[in-house]
Amino acid sequence: MVERLDGHTILIGLMAYPIRHSMSPTMHNNAFAKLGLNYAYLAFDVTNKELPGAIDAIRTLGMRGSNISMPNKQKVIPLLDKLDPAAEMVGAVNTIVNDNGVLTGYTTDGTGFMQSLDDENLDIRGKKMTLAGAGGAGTAIAIQAALDGVKEISIFNLKDAHWEQAKKNVATINAQTKCKATLHSLDEQDKYRSEIAASAIYCDATGVGMKPLQDQSLITDPSFFRQDMIVFDTVYAPRETKLMQIAKKAGVKHVFNGLGMMLEQGAQAFKLWTGEDMPVDYIHELLFADASK
Amino acid sequence: MVERLDGHTILIGLMAYPIRHSMSPTMHNNAFAKLGLNYAYLAFDVTNKELPGAIDAIRTLGMRGSNISMPNKQKVIPLLDKLDPAAEMVGAVNTIVNDNGVLTGYTTDGTGFMQSLDDENLDIRGKKMTLAGAGGAGTAIAIQAALDGVKEISIFNLKDAHWEQAKKNVATINAQTKCKATLHSLDEQDKYRSEIAASAIYCDATGVGMKPLQDQSLITDPSFFRQDMIVFDTVYAPRETKLMQIAKKAGVKHVFNGLGMMLEQGAQAFKLWTGEDMPVDYIHELLFADASK
Repeated sequence: MVERLDGHTILIGLMAYPIRHSMSPTMHNNAFAKLGLNYAYLAFDVTNKELPGAIDAIRTLGMRGSNISMPNKQKVIPLLDKLDPAAEMVGAVNTIVNDNGVLTGYTTDGTGFMQSLDDENLDIRGKKMTLAGAGGAGTAIAIQAALDGVKEISIFNLKDAHWEQAKKNVATINAQTKCKATLHSLDEQDKYRSEIAASAIYCDATGVGMKPLQDQSLITDPSFFRQDMIVFDTVYAPRETKLMQIAKKAGVKHVFNGLGMMLEQGAQAFKLWTGEDMPVDYIHELLFADASK
Repeated sequence: MVERLDGHTILIGLMAYPIRHSMSPTMHNNAFAKLGLNYAYLAFDVTNKELPGAIDAIRTLGMRGSNISMPNKQKVIPLLDKLDPAAEMVGAVNTIVNDNGVLTGYTTDGTGFMQSLDDENLDIRGKKMTLAGAGGAGTAIAIQAALDGVKEISIFNLKDAHWEQAKKNVATINAQTKCKATLHSLDEQDKYRSEIAASAIYCDATGVGMKPLQDQSLITDPSFFRQDMIVFDTVYAPRETKLMQIAKKAGVKHVFNGLGMMLEQGAQAFKLWTGEDMPVDYIHELLFADASK
């Protein structure tokens, strides 16, 4: 077996910290190998301090691009040449494409979310969403859903560090899209219940329920949910979160963790770099065989 | 088959131009794979202009190091923190090791040459060498041979761009080693013949005989050689150079192309980065099966 890397291999990065345990290098390298594309995807420990030098390296080393994750998703913006409109509205970048030294920033978290619903033949365009959270994932989901034609988004958040971002998301959506967005505190439990009751999809993008907080859920009462709605948790470790268990107890048919979104945000970046469709089913099988229901 | 690259993979570079056709990435990546070492070796198009940024990238991206080739072997020196003594004497670097941000420059061309003779159970220490050429390879070979205990080196060169380098090599060897070095013009054909006749090894490091000049050889008369000497050509494309054909015609038993030197210079760098011995025989078989006699 001869290794596929040779003198013609082009580098793509992942710049974040901590990052060495990320699944993304395994995902992308296996997809490159499957399609016979001559790229290598490697993770680099990059904090805000190293970020300007790391972005320079994309140009100097002729890298095709990079993924960007915490703590660099906002800090990277002034270092780029161009921003995709969605990335500009979200105010964060998770993917950089290098076209002959011109660096463009994209965000694929939101398109990954929407694509993961498309993969399940579920369409939330023209419908109402209730969304908890206004961090990186919550912001990307809200903006992309609004851009893609979701009719109404009711955003819930604690009055914490993300409250200002939540207000900004609502303002951006109402000013720049046809979607109607509203903001509520998670303390308003009656409103929380009634908004979910009126929604086609409830999405939790807070990260509550992720290890080591796997025993927690914002919603503990199954009667919040209808059987014909979608319940979506952006967490994928554990594969079945507390929220998902409660939704299933309520008989909800379409209950999802964040695995599909994670794969599809990678696939969107893969497409931007290579022009090719990531073999998502193959990658899912290869990396997450244990995740099958 | 799951790809071996993951989030923990450490990058090693090759910075030169042109470089994409180099065998080194194939050599090192197959050796990493064989030994289960989690590195990736990639080539980058780096001219003198990109070199400072590329060296910065070694530190910023936490690369383990890099090979350096033309046109950067001399230019890189002021950008490094430390120099190995042999690299300092040669005045060129082909390998950089990054120890937590401290970059040390080495040259492994000369040690690769000496090791390739060791591999054949041939020892030129305490003996005389005649060497043609004072370019990068010739300089590295002369200095390392002198450091390793070769007794006398008679260097021949045209009075061309490398003549000054040849003078410098002789001065360095005479000042800093126990070896006695002398310099002669390739125009002195009688001296050329008599020095070779008195030598245990004749080495051509000029590159004459390499494609597309494969029909040329500095020496065309087989009577220059003795059967019991070593004739070594640093060229390995073609596998058998014109010089080698003439040496074989003279009945010389130990005739070598530069393949062993090329593999061993890589193995020396591999050892500096990983602390492990490259599986040279495996790599030779894998990459150069067509080169077996």
